[in-house]
Amino acid sequence: MTVAAARGTRDLLPEAMHRRLHVIGIIRGIFQRFGFEPLETPAIERIETLVGKYGDEGEKLIFRILERGEGGREGKADLALRYDLTVPLARVVAMNGNLPLPFKRYQVQPVWRADRPQKGRFREFYQCDADIVGSRSRVADAECIAIADTAIAALGFTRFEVRVNHRALLRAMVQAAGAPDAEGTVLVAIDKLDKIGRDGVTSELLERGLAPGVVDRLWEILAEPSSLDAVAAAIGEPATAPAAELREVIAHARSLGATHVVFDATLARGLGYYTGPVFEAVLTDGGVGSVSGGGRYDGLVGMFSGRDVPAVGVSLGLERLLTVMEDRGMLAGAPTRTRALVTSFSADTVADALATARDLRAAGLDVESWLGEPGSLGKQFKYAAGKGIPFAIVRGPSEISAGTANVKDLRSGEQRVVPVEGLAADPALREG
Amino acid sequence: MTVAAARGTRDLLPEAMHRRLHVIGIIRGIFQRFGFEPLETPAIERIETLVGKYGDEGEKLIFRILERGEGGREGKADLALRYDLTVPLARVVAMNGNLPLPFKRYQVQPVWRADRPQKGRFREFYQCDADIVGSRSRVADAECIAIADTAIAALGFTRFEVRVNHRALLRAMVQAAGAPDAEGTVLVAIDKLDKIGRDGVTSELLERGLAPGVVDRLWEILAEPSSLDAVAAAIGEPATAPAAELREVIAHARSLGATHVVFDATLARGLGYYTGPVFEAVLTDGGVGSVSGGGRYDGLVGMFSGRDVPAVGVSLGLERLLTVMEDRGMLAGAPTRTRALVTSFSADTVADALATARDLRAAGLDVESWLGEPGSLGKQFKYAAGKGIPFAIVRGPSEISAGTANVKDLRSGEQRVVPVEGLAADPALREG
Repeated sequence: MTVAAARGTRDLLPEAMHRRLHVIGIIRGIFQRFGFEPLETPAIERIETLVGKYGDEGEKLIFRILERGEGGREGKADLALRYDLTVPLARVVAMNGNLPLPFKRYQVQPVWRADRPQKGRFREFYQCDADIVGSRSRVADAECIAIADTAIAALGFTRFEVRVNHRALLRAMVQAAGAPDAEGTVLVAIDKLDKIGRDGVTSELLERGLAPGVVDRLWEILAEPSSLDAVAAAIGEPATAPAAELREVIAHARSLGATHVVFDATLARGLGYYTGPVFEAVLTDGGVGSVSGGGRYDGLVGMFSGRDVPAVGVSLGLERLLTVMEDRGMLAGAPTRTRALVTSFSADTVADALATARDLRAAGLDVESWLGEPGSLGKQFKYAAGKGIPFAIVRGPSEISAGTANVKDLRSGEQRVVPVEGLAADPALREG
Repeated sequence: MTVAAARGTRDLLPEAMHRRLHVIGIIRGIFQRFGFEPLETPAIERIETLVGKYGDEGEKLIFRILERGEGGREGKADLALRYDLTVPLARVVAMNGNLPLPFKRYQVQPVWRADRPQKGRFREFYQCDADIVGSRSRVADAECIAIADTAIAALGFTRFEVRVNHRALLRAMVQAAGAPDAEGTVLVAIDKLDKIGRDGVTSELLERGLAPGVVDRLWEILAEPSSLDAVAAAIGEPATAPAAELREVIAHARSLGATHVVFDATLARGLGYYTGPVFEAVLTDGGVGSVSGGGRYDGLVGMFSGRDVPAVGVSLGLERLLTVMEDRGMLAGAPTRTRALVTSFSADTVADALATARDLRAAGLDVESWLGEPGSLGKQFKYAAGKGIPFAIVRGPSEISAGTANVKDLRSGEQRVVPVEGLAADPALREG
């Protein structure tokens, strides 16, 4: 038998898990700071729920599950694995008509995509989303932007931008350039500006049949892509309303503490389901690119509920953030949370060693008991040091009769004798 | 389109999630107290990994996934959803030959089984497992028992037992009763003693062809099923070694703080893969039954690694624990963690309201901003109270010029005026 994980999947071993739990904890904390509530949806969805939501390319990547057992169509691929967290949210809102709106939920769960596996791209990966359903307020858009800004800063990044734009501004721009029927083509090309540069975008637009005059007009409008005033003036009247809305969103986001917000007229965020303001957080050093994104999508929830329900959301790219933070040594944390190994001196002292571990745990310390043969302290110290456990506790017959414990710092080698009743409160042991 | 979750699955809405995260937090904390490290494995496993591990009945319940995309056998059901957390652990150990042993890991993840959905039984549910791979020490068995005992007590239960037995003792008992070939039959029947009583077990054994003399002999041995000494004496010499081992495990578990451990000669824990001590935690009030179980399984890891690797584990029945705790009002916690709604007095004060929210968040408080139209404080108070948010903060023009904020307790209706610079430190706001 071949022993292997499924293609494109991976196990998260303890060291990776400690880092991941730490980062997820920070992100959850930020979501909760902004008053979002947790939600989880099942990994398995009815295939009907997912079909028609992700475009042709996305749909090819949906994993299908065979129904089995009583009551279903045995052997039919009527089930599927969750592909993102947004469509399940829309389903939940539609199914729970009594949810008080606005419904602010966050969701941290894996999703599955049958992508071709490659370095750093997996078929199962976590998404961390926060969405506000049921509010058209520009404060709601600003909150999502502020969450991206606050979370990325809380993770320890300093060089980043949260770029914002408005879908209606993009539409007005394409119309003003004289290509009202080529909106999709233009957005897809412009979205690649970071990667392929201005010449690359120009080539792509010309190849796709845009007139050279249209392309020239586009670059005229985008002469100062980071100035909302300049771009709006170049577009003219159709830009007035979206530009005003975007100015308000940016001002609100800044009031909420987002200090990295910048306007970017070339930000398109693909075609997707966005209808209003869109944003993307980008690390400006190291060529990493986008680590968060989001925007307003007022049409999606209505696909399920039949009601017109506005929505806006933010997604943090957990996997990419983790990779970058690991590469940059921003997650140098301990390989274990365990503070001490309680050693086993001899067969006669096992009960005492276990009771010592019990007392340390009752006092809130994470400790391990030696699980090998009693005796041979050197072997026990080596095991603990190898696991990154900082301390070893020794109680032999003389310590037991003296009411003390020996605390060995496995990094420095230093040993201290401590009264056993003061052990759990020992500052060095508790420090972690 | 029918809008529904897949059959046998459910959404976990915020109130349920708060309770679940609270309980999982306690359980994770206990696992870490005992020095276990976190692990996650993918939801998707190769079907080969799961086949032949769960018996015929179990195997029918494995959900199969169609491979798709490049590199796989497109459309073939070569993939499957994780059925438990133990087999993936065995695969991880086999694939990572350099893992330092003993490897102590905990894992809190959903599993999927194509069971017939019924009240309280879902096709996707969480398991919470802690396992020690690579130790034959009786301390390892005792730790797993102590974890069940400590965790159930930490969740607030007082009336429960952790019943322990030993597979070798059961085997010796069946042999002493004169039915060495009927071990499986006897264990399956005895396992139901709690449910169908002594008469029911007798009928089942006779129906399955056991001689009446064998059944009588069995009940003689089980005359005092809670006395290890009496049962061992009734079995005779073959019971000596497993009884001694079990006495040691029980003593170690008690040293580790397990105060609810009792011997139970009728505990079988199904057929499964257990090879040594087994245990089950049972609430003794309310007819709930087992909420945790585990035992030693020295054969499973070797099925993957080809090496002989001993293992022992404990599983906490999260879903059942949650149901019981909800039914008994043990989880009366708040519907939200959000401490305050920062209201929006008028269009002119929005920037100030958002900055106030920002400052409260920066000080570590979970607060929400009003996302509706500014004004109409009554509507805003009603919204917050309806969500279970305890406080509302008001800053109108007079508070802004006076440098104060109005803090309204939405439960009592009481209002207080607080200097704005002291707001984040307000004890009532922080109390949650």
